Amino acid sequence: MSSTDRIYNFSAGPSILPLSVLEHAAAEMTNYKNSGMSVMEMSHRSSIYIDIFEETKADLKRLVGVPDTHEILFMHGGATLQFSAVPMNLIGKTGQADYAVTGNFSSLAMKEAKKYGEVKIACSSEDKNHIYIPAQEDIKVSCNASYFYYCSNNTIFGTEWKYIPDTGDVPLVCDMSSNILSVPIDVSKYGAIFAGVQKNMAPAGMAVVIIDKALAGSELSFTPKLLSYQVMMDSDSMHNTPPCYTIYMLGLVLKWLEKQGGIEGMEVIKAKKAKILYDVLDDSKLFSGCAEKDARSDMNVTFRTLSEELDSKFIKEALAAGFDNLKGHRIAGGMRASIYNAMPAEGVQALAGFMREFEAANH
Amino acid sequence: MSSTDRIYNFSAGPSILPLSVLEHAAAEMTNYKNSGMSVMEMSHRSSIYIDIFEETKADLKRLVGVPDTHEILFMHGGATLQFSAVPMNLIGKTGQADYAVTGNFSSLAMKEAKKYGEVKIACSSEDKNHIYIPAQEDIKVSCNASYFYYCSNNTIFGTEWKYIPDTGDVPLVCDMSSNILSVPIDVSKYGAIFAGVQKNMAPAGMAVVIIDKALAGSELSFTPKLLSYQVMMDSDSMHNTPPCYTIYMLGLVLKWLEKQGGIEGMEVIKAKKAKILYDVLDDSKLFSGCAEKDARSDMNVTFRTLSEELDSKFIKEALAAGFDNLKGHRIAGGMRASIYNAMPAEGVQALAGFMREFEAANH
Repeated sequence: MSSTDRIYNFSAGPSILPLSVLEHAAAEMTNYKNSGMSVMEMSHRSSIYIDIFEETKADLKRLVGVPDTHEILFMHGGATLQFSAVPMNLIGKTGQADYAVTGNFSSLAMKEAKKYGEVKIACSSEDKNHIYIPAQEDIKVSCNASYFYYCSNNTIFGTEWKYIPDTGDVPLVCDMSSNILSVPIDVSKYGAIFAGVQKNMAPAGMAVVIIDKALAGSELSFTPKLLSYQVMMDSDSMHNTPPCYTIYMLGLVLKWLEKQGGIEGMEVIKAKKAKILYDVLDDSKLFSGCAEKDARSDMNVTFRTLSEELDSKFIKEALAAGFDNLKGHRIAGGMRASIYNAMPAEGVQALAGFMREFEAANH
Repeated sequence: MSSTDRIYNFSAGPSILPLSVLEHAAAEMTNYKNSGMSVMEMSHRSSIYIDIFEETKADLKRLVGVPDTHEILFMHGGATLQFSAVPMNLIGKTGQADYAVTGNFSSLAMKEAKKYGEVKIACSSEDKNHIYIPAQEDIKVSCNASYFYYCSNNTIFGTEWKYIPDTGDVPLVCDMSSNILSVPIDVSKYGAIFAGVQKNMAPAGMAVVIIDKALAGSELSFTPKLLSYQVMMDSDSMHNTPPCYTIYMLGLVLKWLEKQGGIEGMEVIKAKKAKILYDVLDDSKLFSGCAEKDARSDMNVTFRTLSEELDSKFIKEALAAGFDNLKGHRIAGGMRASIYNAMPAEGVQALAGFMREFEAANH
């Protein structure tokens, strides 16, 4: 426990934010840089706010390495609204799209896409309850698909794609909500990337979209204006009032990320953090990981004990010891420790120690 | 200027928030009620967050007087996304809708609705550049319209509907973004009410929707799930992660509103504030109001001097004196003082004094 009485919050999303970011936001809540107002109160057209907006966008472009072929959009609504926006904007080219179903959210995205065109399942891990990621040779890409869709990290099942699928000429679309900013991305390989911000970026209520400019402009006729990538590109994400404060918070998180060594620095840090917990699981006779080893997520560590009763006991005792939100998602059961960028290594170390103590007491 | 060096912010949106609300939010930013976490970091499914959510919703229901026939929804995206959601949900009944065009935003809403059905202009104030509100006898309601749409306060032109249009059996849909919570509403008369929160309610990035439950469930087949009123009703606005922190901020604003005497108290306060500025305009030989007297908005006071040069001089000197964001919208010109609920009476008094001084120096 830190001096400010913070707990270790392993929530899968909305999630822990860096303490320094929260303290910074609190300090300038009523008066941002001597402007006499909160960022929450600023006109989105004012120069003082535009500076925040442009700096955040530039930092994101630099940190992620977004090439000039692509545009960054800040869009309302989180990843779920992108489940609709992606097909509305991109399926019109051929009327068809391929989906890789490796968890709950890719499945929901696929169902939503069916409203807008013909959708094929290019691969699925449903046969083993999504504990693995299909191999390249198991992916069937349709030559006439407008795009190939996958989710790079499956929050609920704790699996993560360790490779970028090769789909030939079919543009890749990826939901990176739960591992963006934790691992370098070769953006040039993607037609579109999107991420709800509430895990590794900012408070809930927005999605970051990175779109290949060449793919925008072909939305279906009934696409709401605010969901059109072209409209959002043309207005620099200001067709209407954007979620201004969320963008400001993202900016603070990016400044913090830069101090951790950027995404390259974070890649090392997060791998070390994940190894701490996976080592506990691999050494344990009580705990076992849910995901297959080669598909394990570095963001969401899913595990269970020998029984549901012991799972419940663990979650209860962990909470009492200052580790919150370790209960697994209801459709997966067991436990889940979400260790996003903002989770300090001490938190992971402390949880590992607690797990070992729990095992010693319950062997 | 207050002791915290706040300026008087007359921005039309995002807008001033009560200082006590901002201070409250700052104080519990890193540790909400000894939970060890920020509201920004809470799982939206956690009991601690659900308590915030339900209390906010209950406070809004009580303060606005929402009957059990209607449901309150917290939706992503602000009013502009409702320009799409309203027709997608409601126009399917007959395929037609009527729009009252009394400003920029109702015009944009009408254009968006044309994607989804046949739209008729039931009345318009465009002939006089939107400086008035059409009278009841000038409204032509189509008997087969699925709904009649209007915007109760026109932020850019500074006009406000002083009556509820009588549309017979055709359900009323109203965009109340810029005057909600400033005047009592007979919700039972409306099929749907919506409001972007960034003027009188909370930071930008969300809309409050109040929907007659009987009207939901008839959305067009291609409506994105997150824009479906039925889906949002069935999930209590949690089909996906809602803009959790924005809802929390709304909750704080509602507690503050209650201390002002609720909406009934605010109605008295806002009328007094508006009168201060309109009295200056009516007494002035230099300043004149833009809107016709019987249509004047109590939220957005639009005015001008005798020339554009003098307008610019006024805006510049006002800013130097601590009055920010007084420039009128680019499509209306002149000046605009947005005096939403959170603008203290002292701010309005101070502006009135400054206007009189400016007139004395520039007569």
